[in-house]
Amino acid sequence: MTLALDAAAQDLLFREARTANTFSDEPVSDEQVQAIYDLVKFGPTAFNQQPLRIVLVRSEEGRARLVQHMADGNKAKTSTAPLVAILAADNEFHEELPSQLPHFPQAKDLFFSERPVRESSAALNAALQAAYFIIGVRAAGLAAGPMTGFDAEGLNKEFFGDGEHSVLTVVNIGKPGEEAWFPRGPRLEYDQVVTTV
Amino acid sequence: MTLALDAAAQDLLFREARTANTFSDEPVSDEQVQAIYDLVKFGPTAFNQQPLRIVLVRSEEGRARLVQHMADGNKAKTSTAPLVAILAADNEFHEELPSQLPHFPQAKDLFFSERPVRESSAALNAALQAAYFIIGVRAAGLAAGPMTGFDAEGLNKEFFGDGEHSVLTVVNIGKPGEEAWFPRGPRLEYDQVVTTV
Repeated sequence: MTLALDAAAQDLLFREARTANTFSDEPVSDEQVQAIYDLVKFGPTAFNQQPLRIVLVRSEEGRARLVQHMADGNKAKTSTAPLVAILAADNEFHEELPSQLPHFPQAKDLFFSERPVRESSAALNAALQAAYFIIGVRAAGLAAGPMTGFDAEGLNKEFFGDGEHSVLTVVNIGKPGEEAWFPRGPRLEYDQVVTTV
Repeated sequence: MTLALDAAAQDLLFREARTANTFSDEPVSDEQVQAIYDLVKFGPTAFNQQPLRIVLVRSEEGRARLVQHMADGNKAKTSTAPLVAILAADNEFHEELPSQLPHFPQAKDLFFSERPVRESSAALNAALQAAYFIIGVRAAGLAAGPMTGFDAEGLNKEFFGDGEHSVLTVVNIGKPGEEAWFPRGPRLEYDQVVTTV
């Protein structure tokens, strides 16, 4: 069984792509991030809600504000990656629904008038978009280093003072550096994951 | 700015890929699902936890058990798609950690001894894997129709009687049928999503 996607693309996105722990000095430009976004923005979300928001940390001051909230084991790589992106869910995404779902603008009030419903929907759909973004980083020929080891409440307050965003993951981005990877970890077998009824 | 991923692959996975609402009769084989899994299993998760579990609904009885829990607007397409996959998070994923994270088996007890922590981590990481799976379906030349309109508690009980799984999304899979798509919805502009500090 072969896939429609060519083998080189399979390798680039999945088979040879790895979570990088070190990076080279080569910078990552805004144009590269824009090209990534302009590809992965087409990934599907429920009601086309698109709750993902991205903060690119470029200034020295921003980097320091970020690193203080990272777990100790993530501080060194977060300090040295060419670019770091904070990926968060916008729990007030419904404000954009009338423009993003023009054939059904009532969805904003019919389905998303309650904050807990929005938070739950934003968490799932922004996570889908975070995965599309990681794939997009790889599509750009870059390595992604997604991390979840951080003080989430601290990051929410530090970068989203409005109380309306929930940080999901922080992603180091760049060309891999020396000894960038750990050995590839195992994967669950198909029969451990997939059952049929 | 061009991406490393070739344009045909960009189109296949994102730019021309669409959420299908109707499907042809052409079946989707177990071999196709295995090829999809064997590609997307390499997508990254925190601690290599791989919490995604997949139920393929193939029998008539299974289809009926599923459709009763779907929202009315999703019943027809869930009834007629060549294959339907239920994607769930395994909240007891930590049982597999010693085999899946062999260099750090203590992670199971150090980080994941508490159920609420596991649920939160499984929800995020299984959602990342759900997105990889959607991309994988497209990589196989098939259309995916992910849905979140269903009675989640009903599905959890119907297909995972152990109380240890949380259904995230149900995905219709197949070749697109007649009038398979709505018009492409808009997307948020780069400047609405990305900020820089």
